[in-house]
Amino acid sequence: MSSSFGTLFRVTTFGESHGLGIGAVVDGCPPKITLDETDIQPQLDRRRPAQSKLTTPRNEADRVSIFSGVENGKTLGTPISLIIKNKDQRVEDYRQIFSVPRPSHADYTYQIKYGIRARSGGGRSSARETAGRVAAGAIAEKFLYEDYGIEIVAWVSAVYSIVAPALDITQITRRDVDKSMVRCPDPLAAEKMEDFILEARNAGDSVGGIITCVCRNLPAGLGEPVFDKAEAILAQAMLSIPATKGFEIGSGFAGSRMRGSEHNDVFLKKGDRLGTKTNYSGGVQGGITNGEPIIFRVAFKPPATISLPQKTADFDGNDVVLEAGGRHDPCVVPRAVPIVESMAALVIADFALRQKMREEVL
Amino acid sequence: MSSSFGTLFRVTTFGESHGLGIGAVVDGCPPKITLDETDIQPQLDRRRPAQSKLTTPRNEADRVSIFSGVENGKTLGTPISLIIKNKDQRVEDYRQIFSVPRPSHADYTYQIKYGIRARSGGGRSSARETAGRVAAGAIAEKFLYEDYGIEIVAWVSAVYSIVAPALDITQITRRDVDKSMVRCPDPLAAEKMEDFILEARNAGDSVGGIITCVCRNLPAGLGEPVFDKAEAILAQAMLSIPATKGFEIGSGFAGSRMRGSEHNDVFLKKGDRLGTKTNYSGGVQGGITNGEPIIFRVAFKPPATISLPQKTADFDGNDVVLEAGGRHDPCVVPRAVPIVESMAALVIADFALRQKMREEVL
Amino acid sequence: MSSSFGTLFRVTTFGESHGLGIGAVVDGCPPKITLDETDIQPQLDRRRPAQSKLTTPRNEADRVSIFSGVENGKTLGTPISLIIKNKDQRVEDYRQIFSVPRPSHADYTYQIKYGIRARSGGGRSSARETAGRVAAGAIAEKFLYEDYGIEIVAWVSAVYSIVAPALDITQITRRDVDKSMVRCPDPLAAEKMEDFILEARNAGDSVGGIITCVCRNLPAGLGEPVFDKAEAILAQAMLSIPATKGFEIGSGFAGSRMRGSEHNDVFLKKGDRLGTKTNYSGGVQGGITNGEPIIFRVAFKPPATISLPQKTADFDGNDVVLEAGGRHDPCVVPRAVPIVESMAALVIADFALRQKMREEVL
Amino acid sequence: MSSSFGTLFRVTTFGESHGLGIGAVVDGCPPKITLDETDIQPQLDRRRPAQSKLTTPRNEADRVSIFSGVENGKTLGTPISLIIKNKDQRVEDYRQIFSVPRPSHADYTYQIKYGIRARSGGGRSSARETAGRVAAGAIAEKFLYEDYGIEIVAWVSAVYSIVAPALDITQITRRDVDKSMVRCPDPLAAEKMEDFILEARNAGDSVGGIITCVCRNLPAGLGEPVFDKAEAILAQAMLSIPATKGFEIGSGFAGSRMRGSEHNDVFLKKGDRLGTKTNYSGGVQGGITNGEPIIFRVAFKPPATISLPQKTADFDGNDVVLEAGGRHDPCVVPRAVPIVESMAALVIADFALRQKMREEVL
Repeated sequence: MSSSFGTLFRVTTFGESHGLGIGAVVDGCPPKITLDETDIQPQLDRRRPAQSKLTTPRNEADRVSIFSGVENGKTLGTPISLIIKNKDQRVEDYRQIFSVPRPSHADYTYQIKYGIRARSGGGRSSARETAGRVAAGAIAEKFLYEDYGIEIVAWVSAVYSIVAPALDITQITRRDVDKSMVRCPDPLAAEKMEDFILEARNAGDSVGGIITCVCRNLPAGLGEPVFDKAEAILAQAMLSIPATKGFEIGSGFAGSRMRGSEHNDVFLKKGDRLGTKTNYSGGVQGGITNGEPIIFRVAFKPPATISLPQKTADFDGNDVVLEAGGRHDPCVVPRAVPIVESMAALVIADFALRQKMREEVL
Repeated sequence: MSSSFGTLFRVTTFGESHGLGIGAVVDGCPPKITLDETDIQPQLDRRRPAQSKLTTPRNEADRVSIFSGVENGKTLGTPISLIIKNKDQRVEDYRQIFSVPRPSHADYTYQIKYGIRARSGGGRSSARETAGRVAAGAIAEKFLYEDYGIEIVAWVSAVYSIVAPALDITQITRRDVDKSMVRCPDPLAAEKMEDFILEARNAGDSVGGIITCVCRNLPAGLGEPVFDKAEAILAQAMLSIPATKGFEIGSGFAGSRMRGSEHNDVFLKKGDRLGTKTNYSGGVQGGITNGEPIIFRVAFKPPATISLPQKTADFDGNDVVLEAGGRHDPCVVPRAVPIVESMAALVIADFALRQKMREEVL
Repeated sequence: MSSSFGTLFRVTTFGESHGLGIGAVVDGCPPKITLDETDIQPQLDRRRPAQSKLTTPRNEADRVSIFSGVENGKTLGTPISLIIKNKDQRVEDYRQIFSVPRPSHADYTYQIKYGIRARSGGGRSSARETAGRVAAGAIAEKFLYEDYGIEIVAWVSAVYSIVAPALDITQITRRDVDKSMVRCPDPLAAEKMEDFILEARNAGDSVGGIITCVCRNLPAGLGEPVFDKAEAILAQAMLSIPATKGFEIGSGFAGSRMRGSEHNDVFLKKGDRLGTKTNYSGGVQGGITNGEPIIFRVAFKPPATISLPQKTADFDGNDVVLEAGGRHDPCVVPRAVPIVESMAALVIADFALRQKMREEVL
Repeated sequence: MSSSFGTLFRVTTFGESHGLGIGAVVDGCPPKITLDETDIQPQLDRRRPAQSKLTTPRNEADRVSIFSGVENGKTLGTPISLIIKNKDQRVEDYRQIFSVPRPSHADYTYQIKYGIRARSGGGRSSARETAGRVAAGAIAEKFLYEDYGIEIVAWVSAVYSIVAPALDITQITRRDVDKSMVRCPDPLAAEKMEDFILEARNAGDSVGGIITCVCRNLPAGLGEPVFDKAEAILAQAMLSIPATKGFEIGSGFAGSRMRGSEHNDVFLKKGDRLGTKTNYSGGVQGGITNGEPIIFRVAFKPPATISLPQKTADFDGNDVVLEAGGRHDPCVVPRAVPIVESMAALVIADFALRQKMREEVL
């Protein structure tokens, strides 16, 4: 049941990287939302491979079909199932390396856990699994935007040591983000990042990066106390994305190097609501949204698949030199932007439904 | 149900900061484990207030009683309930500030969420709630140590900008950690940290810090794919602790500034198992433990309660100057060490039980 | 985690029959409900032992304390914990029979399941555990009555082969039910039932019976499709009560002996809502309430503890004659009436909260 | 999330009666089980429409495809997704009756619950949804048979007032059951039942019936105390099947008319285990299996769709005479036999995995 996420707005994903395809079931989506495939496909297109020279050449159109839960363009309130067929799987690419667990991949751990594993590619551990999440997340986004006006925008804020300058989180749009292949809205930084990624690719290597995400127009009161705090479930959601190594919200790690008198977000009147002067809290206090934007950052390691030869060991412990097959991204962050947005949407949609139980109904 | 955590080894906490007391129910603890209060009290003593001049003076002995689930010193496999009575609650300290939401506290968000809140202290949002987690975590630790030999040790690795030097994570013990009040095993750093915290307290201010935690002797194969990856559930667990703003595992945010050829943990034979030469992965690959130590870091912000006057707004949006009542810690990390350890233990115990479903039974 | 029940209105019970006491945690109860112990105690008094000559003489006052979640007589929306101390446990009564599993008790199955069991009485399998449910159910009832006007009334409709005549389910009240010790609202049947139970007790034997329950004033639309149908979760709830062997709703087993043309509940206008002419459905269609009363029946077997000697086997398979110690009820149905009501209330409260996620909010 | 069932062996179904198709995802199935479509199809064939003159003429081959989770004929331990396409949906059959809620159908309750509903057939409330359960259940059965030798056999024990005589539950097989179209192993009763059903069909009417199910070779110790007792989860599972009105286990309702001295199942040695002389308990004590066969009965009402005209009301409360369109079964029990078996298998598979957490591992 670890392939399911959420309490009331609940997604279950299925499918292996090199099997027939992948998919998702969304159970708990509210009824009467206008929905068809064109609401979902754009985010899948932003996640799909072979979209630019920065990404893996594996060529998947990632066309989504809504198999159930929608009739005449409206959600029924019943489980929405989504199917994305694999087209360009290449089982044979992986044959020669089956006896050698790829360093920093899940080959070894899946084999130990299950006593068996998919013979080609990463199976469920492949980032391909996230297409199901992105499809589901697009539905969550539609609900959040229509019912609450919530907007979620993520972008690449760092690649290796190239860091984009701070920007106005109240204004940034996906259009701004998509102006560059690398999905960094700062043109200068974007150019440097792209050059650096291509250089790494040419060297047979890979590089890490950071994604920043903002969620705007949230009502105060979302998130559940104690174990299901908004930041806690966001952290789970983000660290469940392949290749992630860190999460921080608001002031984050930098907040540990601050004094309370600097860090405290004092209140002030903002129109008809109470807002805060600063936002070191990142939009949450005590695990519950306060009406300010949620702002968080996610660290991605460099992809484990590289072309450079690696001295490692096979399953029996014998020394081997591995030269990797398979196709891969030299840096995951450009394609991970819609994944981060989708997981954020799934988290917030669930909190929105959970908060309804405390509200007066009409 | 957000006061419950875990799938098979499941803890539910209850109780408010200034009510009759707090407690926890642990459902799913294996039967026939030797257990009495003396297994639990030591970690509570490490978490209790008034343990040193670095902590809040609120004087709570935090004596735990096992109310059910244990008979003649053995767990029955039934729910273990744990009760800790409040002794030094001071409801009146909070009267005057009830109309002013304390900056960076949960007063405002709880009020919006529920339309009501505890009139004294933080209620459920208070760190006092974590005493229940620590009591439950001590039971998880006992199970993990007896059945798997797992050891979990956390320590303060930074206070404000004072950073302790790296240490040998394979050797560090709680005894090393407890040599200083601040729970930093490096004596020089510890001294500086303590001075800095006392200085902040005297100035009516507070400071943040970082806790590092290592989990040793884990078998490979723990953690569940996709949404319940080990790092994802650890991240949720850590970000559910009050005052946390960030989590990173293995290389963490620094990993985003690395190349794949540096970051990959190549395999080599270690005795009768396959190990890795480096541990940038932090003990997990694809969300599943690989047999190397889990190593992670948690960022804590400075406590929100400070004595310095703060210009803020009351619930109606009127400008006010708040001078805080209540007792508080100038820095939470010394007392948060056992909380981090306990949450890690709860996560790992649950994964250990979940993995059993895939194993051959006798 | 099998000691928890419900998705949003969630109760967790704890405690053994002959330990320090029993209790419950209710997580998810809406905030701002007026609540104190006097709302809970009456149902506990209807469930308590030693309330009449028809029940076990074990003398437990079953005084409940609210330990958390309520402040100044209002629920906070946080976990409500409830404690009931045991007073009259008699551990020594069970010493001699520890090596002999009592026929039709859970002694044998708990021993096999856990490899250990409570040395006295039934531990968690004892009906004493249900006091926690009744306390939690009283809170659910208060919420349902105040927010929806929902009324839940159960009564004894059969003891052994003595069957009470049909009655007007739209009118019956708990006051009617409590007019007789046996909790059958028909005076003639009640008298016969009481005589029969006393006769069985004097003979050292026990007898079974049936409880019928009606839930009135439910809005249409409660209950969740497919696996969490209203009748399915009610069935789970009822079969989770000790000593139950059957559940039927509406026409029940008799419905299997009917034709569709008789059984179909045709619609007709009832005031401003659509109602049904008959109610063979028992208030639910497709798992969802239709606005008619829910009506269901629960079968209870005769209690397993009897004074008559029984030829059975000990744990090693040796023939023994068991003469039971311990105190017990000759028939459980009089005391099970509030248990049935409480479980029904927990089920409906959870459905009410779950339905809110589909409703427009103010 | 009400379309999911189970804690560790967890099935999620999706799909509407007259949409593209239906399906299921099984998450938590153990790895390394030999599995392909031929393991699943036979139970789907026993459930499919148009299999005999006793069933609906809707012609669905119900061919299942395994879309994920299996590679080279072995389960991977990852989610197994199953797809069954609809072929003979007839949307137009339902056009004329959309404004009239069919009596004793879920048309009215779904409309109220969701404010929208599938325009054709029952959508998710249709028994067609159970094809996904049957496919999932066939996988559970394979696991249970291979790992434990568990056998599950259900049969039609009553149609209307025609009751089959008792039979030897230790011997009955599916082959015996399938000797007659009606799936009653007693030839005389089967003939009478078939005649009666055809008579009802010819009269434009429908009839109810009862299914009995036995589960053999279960180990003692399965089932979880308190709320997830084996009988409680079986009751939920069975009452979640469309058209069910009652459930009883062991002595059932008849047990309420017995004395303890008759009803108690005394122990005796059976080979190397402790067994019981009688089995009024139905294989469970205190919610946990005792090693004797589980035996239970499920009551089905007559199908709501009949051809006879019905005086009822439309959604606005106006009197109408409804003459039903759509195709339907005159009696559901022959096709419900594999559904009952599948739900039982899902319940037991989940309990088997849950019990593993308490067992010593190799």
